Amino acid sequence: MAASTKNRIMDSSAELFRRQGYAGTGIKQILVAANAPFGSLYHFFPGGKEQLGAETIRSSGQLYSELFATIAAQAPDVPSAVGEFFSGAAETLVETDYADACPIATVALEVASTNEQLRVACAEVFESWIEGATRYFAAAGIPAQRARELAISMLCLLEGAFIFCRAMRNTEPLRVAGASAVAAVTEALG
Amino acid sequence: MAASTKNRIMDSSAELFRRQGYAGTGIKQILVAANAPFGSLYHFFPGGKEQLGAETIRSSGQLYSELFATIAAQAPDVPSAVGEFFSGAAETLVETDYADACPIATVALEVASTNEQLRVACAEVFESWIEGATRYFAAAGIPAQRARELAISMLCLLEGAFIFCRAMRNTEPLRVAGASAVAAVTEALG
Repeated sequence: MAASTKNRIMDSSAELFRRQGYAGTGIKQILVAANAPFGSLYHFFPGGKEQLGAETIRSSGQLYSELFATIAAQAPDVPSAVGEFFSGAAETLVETDYADACPIATVALEVASTNEQLRVACAEVFESWIEGATRYFAAAGIPAQRARELAISMLCLLEGAFIFCRAMRNTEPLRVAGASAVAAVTEALG
Repeated sequence: MAASTKNRIMDSSAELFRRQGYAGTGIKQILVAANAPFGSLYHFFPGGKEQLGAETIRSSGQLYSELFATIAAQAPDVPSAVGEFFSGAAETLVETDYADACPIATVALEVASTNEQLRVACAEVFESWIEGATRYFAAAGIPAQRARELAISMLCLLEGAFIFCRAMRNTEPLRVAGASAVAAVTEALG
């Protein structure tokens, strides 16, 4: 079976996990969405749904880091990059009828107390996001500890806003949270 | 069957939903945890798991509002109340081994794109929290629009921090997010 089958399975599981969670997504639904034969799951993921879950979390987390890096590379300055990350997220939410927000938050909350392998995968992704944003802010001249605090606050604002926006079907929380993150970064840059 | 049976069912479902989500929680698990007979579910909740879910979301949301109101009533000033809400949340997380954070966020993310009845219940709870915090900030003299923005930012910081803290088994995100919320409120109060 070609590697493209594995990619299709991971794309489908990423989409279904972020939209409806881990427990609510069956293996069969993932394979149908990926147009993949049933045997392909255990061919590519001998550990079954749990292994697929862990690999999906890490891969989705990595893609999301790259999205932020791409936005940051194109933005004229740090506050603009932060603002565009939030406004881009709001656009994606509206385009997907409020389905696609954080790639791993739904699963993260479900598994934190129930599945140690998946919790650890989420924790590693979150720590990598915090470290990536910390490096980005520090490179702009913000002292290391303050840069880490800004990174954590920005990511908390984003994740929290996703919860409110998806439930309320409204982008106001992302707009307000984004403005708050931009203001904090702007102030830290002096 | 006494009303206390209904209360026990709702308490158990609230605990299981916030810890492991809606899809991952079976009716049987709820009834066993509540020490309730199987027939009691449909006696009290003719609409089954979905009705229980909606009532649990509304009731948990109301309790959480009351918790904030209690903290606010005892705090010497508005920034202290905000700080104590975050530090109290961090204490609860540690005491419950990182299990008990937001009463409805796990379910909110799971159902936003999959169950309209439960999504609406979450949206109503979130709007009531935003309105409650807005009134609290406005009563302290902050202009209405700014008060709503502060309320949304504070709640986004809290919800986002819960996701990171539970996955990372660390209270740093709540500490940092709480300090950020306190700083924003302090600045708005001039």
